Amino acid sequence: MTDANFTNVRCPIPSVDQSIVQLAHGGAGRIAQKLLDQVFRPILHNPALDELHDSARVTSESGKLAFSTDAFVVHPWRFPGGDIGSLAVHGTVNDLAMAGARPLALSMAFIIEEGFKIADLMTVIESMRNAADRARVAVVAADTKVVERGKGDGIFLVSSGIGEMVAERPILPTSVREGDRVIVSGCLARHGVAVMCARDGLDLDPVVESDSTLVHEPALALLKEGIEVHCFRDITRGGLATVLNEIASAGSVGIRIEEARTPVREDVASVCELLGLNPLYVACEGRFVAFVAEKHASRAIEILRDYDCSKGATDIGVVEGRAGQVVMKSLIGVDRVLDLLSGEQLPRIC
Amino acid sequence: MTDANFTNVRCPIPSVDQSIVQLAHGGAGRIAQKLLDQVFRPILHNPALDELHDSARVTSESGKLAFSTDAFVVHPWRFPGGDIGSLAVHGTVNDLAMAGARPLALSMAFIIEEGFKIADLMTVIESMRNAADRARVAVVAADTKVVERGKGDGIFLVSSGIGEMVAERPILPTSVREGDRVIVSGCLARHGVAVMCARDGLDLDPVVESDSTLVHEPALALLKEGIEVHCFRDITRGGLATVLNEIASAGSVGIRIEEARTPVREDVASVCELLGLNPLYVACEGRFVAFVAEKHASRAIEILRDYDCSKGATDIGVVEGRAGQVVMKSLIGVDRVLDLLSGEQLPRIC
Repeated sequence: MTDANFTNVRCPIPSVDQSIVQLAHGGAGRIAQKLLDQVFRPILHNPALDELHDSARVTSESGKLAFSTDAFVVHPWRFPGGDIGSLAVHGTVNDLAMAGARPLALSMAFIIEEGFKIADLMTVIESMRNAADRARVAVVAADTKVVERGKGDGIFLVSSGIGEMVAERPILPTSVREGDRVIVSGCLARHGVAVMCARDGLDLDPVVESDSTLVHEPALALLKEGIEVHCFRDITRGGLATVLNEIASAGSVGIRIEEARTPVREDVASVCELLGLNPLYVACEGRFVAFVAEKHASRAIEILRDYDCSKGATDIGVVEGRAGQVVMKSLIGVDRVLDLLSGEQLPRIC
Repeated sequence: MTDANFTNVRCPIPSVDQSIVQLAHGGAGRIAQKLLDQVFRPILHNPALDELHDSARVTSESGKLAFSTDAFVVHPWRFPGGDIGSLAVHGTVNDLAMAGARPLALSMAFIIEEGFKIADLMTVIESMRNAADRARVAVVAADTKVVERGKGDGIFLVSSGIGEMVAERPILPTSVREGDRVIVSGCLARHGVAVMCARDGLDLDPVVESDSTLVHEPALALLKEGIEVHCFRDITRGGLATVLNEIASAGSVGIRIEEARTPVREDVASVCELLGLNPLYVACEGRFVAFVAEKHASRAIEILRDYDCSKGATDIGVVEGRAGQVVMKSLIGVDRVLDLLSGEQLPRIC
């Protein structure tokens, strides 16, 4: 895999106008983190939101639920391996599974720019329906708004989902323990690269297809089989390195991974090199990381490999070291800190 | 109140380019209906979505839930009496109540245009928080995406909500029965007029303030008091006339109302006349209509009048006549059909 040395450098937050929203505020780097920490969380804070997980846990009088929402502004809306419709379903079903929940129902809000083709809208809705059918869940509520030309960008979607908790223990960053094994479910960075190539009109042969898919089945299978899973997280915005940093920080643990074990396909690594991207910071949409008690790690990998979408599951490291820090042993055997990026390598990939 | 005669005329759908999304597709008129009926519903259909109510009913193993989603693209984002943050909370809490459910949790997705002021973002989030506090519900999940300048319009919000069913019977258009009384909770059209004046810079004295508010307390109080409510609907896009048409159509009932009993404040009626709007087609964001068994109608009005937000509750008509048709006895005693408009009088008011 490619080795982009800039990740060694602790980038200072660039001196941008702090009084307005920047594109990087929508990413997964330190600038976005700052917006969350200084604007959203102080005002909205509550126990469920403060857990900072992919789905919130909601207790009703009658049971335990997971609740999740995600906005999708991917550009272009169609890319090799998927489109915004399937992406929105995958994203929300996966987020529910990452909290240890079985999907129960989805809702979908459409914000469409005037002039978007009805035929394209039908493609998006059909793709959404097919993905929902595969997840055995229905879109039970929907809303549509249309904005004037030049006030939107084709189509934006927001999907929300509710799920029934399957996990007996809380699946959360704070549940992660020293010694847990860090397992990724497959090769990294394909989604971001696929969208980027589609956006830039890069005509590669063979085309890199997005990894966008449903991952709830293998994730929930681990729970069903009694594997002691402490945390799940799907590897979306900001890629593996960002996701590990988020968990290290929210769970106050150290994480140590090995570059040599980190799965990146050769063709994807080549495109990343061409585009100047570090694949560890490039989003997937059908991959997740599981923090599993050491005694169950090899059985967990066996179970995951039974599913197509996680047949590349592999153990890449362990929970140890300084709280809040992610360290990677590089290919040449040197330890380096895998930090949050300042901004976002790839805007609007989801 | 003003009497815009164009509602007597059955407007043909204008010959627009049918292959692209029009601004009117986001409204509540016949063009929007056509998009729903020909594009969304055939592809997405499922029993919950097909009920065509403000919230979907979801049955989990452990209980009965309501689930709702709404996109907000109101322009300008701030208007007399509210802003997009409070509006998004009101809209979703009210939608849950309209299905007979007590709000349990909200989620919120932000799609922000690069360059939006952080101070304005904080205003929106604070207003959202305050509205959620008043509803005694928390925003437990959130997501933020940022799009480039010129690819959005300041700020769009999507709020979703889950609620626990309080209603023992289904509160649905198909539950409406011949002889039910039609009760509106207060004066009409203030929200749409307030947004329109803000957008056009109309400097009225006194200013018309939006009616945007929470209405779940009086609605749920009716259920708690054992009032036989057959259907609720909040009077948003398209105003009272559109909402009644939706229920007449989905419930296969006729509805007959009296113009003289339909509450529109004089100042609001004057602005409508000035702007060429029919207030019966102008949105509220803090008003609802209840279809109540005749024997309980006067008690229902008493209960509603105990709450500030519904102290103007009044009986405006009855369920009778040709299925699918809404008829209004005008001020001069003539019956006329209150039809769906073709397009939308006021785009982007929610």
